Amino acid sequence: MNQATGAPGTSRPGGRTARVREAVLRAAGDALADKGIGGVDLAEVARLAGVGKTTVYRRWGTVPGLVADLLAEMAESSLPRARTGALETDLAALAGLILKTLTDERQGPLFKAVIAAAASDPQTAAALHRFYRVRIDEWAPCVAEAAARGDVPAGTDADEVVRALSAPLYYRFLVSGDPLDPDTAARAAAAAAAAARAGAYA
Amino acid sequence: MNQATGAPGTSRPGGRTARVREAVLRAAGDALADKGIGGVDLAEVARLAGVGKTTVYRRWGTVPGLVADLLAEMAESSLPRARTGALETDLAALAGLILKTLTDERQGPLFKAVIAAAASDPQTAAALHRFYRVRIDEWAPCVAEAAARGDVPAGTDADEVVRALSAPLYYRFLVSGDPLDPDTAARAAAAAAAAARAGAYA
Repeated sequence: MNQATGAPGTSRPGGRTARVREAVLRAAGDALADKGIGGVDLAEVARLAGVGKTTVYRRWGTVPGLVADLLAEMAESSLPRARTGALETDLAALAGLILKTLTDERQGPLFKAVIAAAASDPQTAAALHRFYRVRIDEWAPCVAEAAARGDVPAGTDADEVVRALSAPLYYRFLVSGDPLDPDTAARAAAAAAAAARAGAYA
Repeated sequence: MNQATGAPGTSRPGGRTARVREAVLRAAGDALADKGIGGVDLAEVARLAGVGKTTVYRRWGTVPGLVADLLAEMAESSLPRARTGALETDLAALAGLILKTLTDERQGPLFKAVIAAAASDPQTAAALHRFYRVRIDEWAPCVAEAAARGDVPAGTDADEVVRALSAPLYYRFLVSGDPLDPDTAARAAAAAAAAARAGAYA
């Protein structure tokens, strides 16, 4: 909050509070990716982040509170949508981004841990749903623009096209265990575009 | 194994061993649905099933071993595929079945608990993947028959069409938290059929 307290060269937008948040969320994400939700401990996160335990307990309170803030930060910092000018290539860009995330050696286990935690914790589930709401809102205009160009029927449910493209990747990741590779991503994008053009989401 | 030991009227195919398995897996499924994976305890499952603890420890050994057998039993006893004679209606039947399962007050929480457990336990993950392998093998002939009729292009990947139809329902169930309703199921089936007809899985 108070940028004047930062030493020269270490100050960032938001100042010390923002730096503490960044360090704590980084440590929380590392713990989640390494050990799953059961391995996240507020005192240990504080130690890894080089931050006082009291600060972490006061600001985040509980593990679900910390995970919810991590998801909020991931939504804030996630990449903007593609603007390639064509539905197929916009959707292919999103599928590639999801593939990269789910197969990343840190992000993949982190998402798996958070989604598993959401199965039994309502606060984590609500934070997870908000994360995907933000991502769907970011990418839906790709479909709305395609509708405006006449590439998909008027009245196509843009949110649902984004979900339809994402779903096969998450299904393999969480449910069936089938491989996640560039072909899978390309096919998910092509299928969502084909179904949208055929009017399946109108 | 020994049907002769069953009292008249209580004997079933497989005899006592099969009855013990049925009771234990029923109790395990109830515990999973009620309390999640952390609430499953072999001694408590034995008590609820009216079976000796030693029997349960000797036969199933661990919670993941018990969950794996529950998934095997669910695969064995799951419903046969539809044979309506048309791709759209076969796929609609499968989507309806998945919707019914995921929104069932016992089956929904049970699946959520098992999928969450699979995120951190390789034995459970392997059992889960076998369950979906069995289900995909059961339903893929609906697509193969559509290809034989010329309704979808030759060379259409039947497994992938089954996954494509399932995925949007699981995505809402596990990831985005958007509602699961008959419209969602109908749209998942229609979209998979439309994409298959357009050659997205060929």
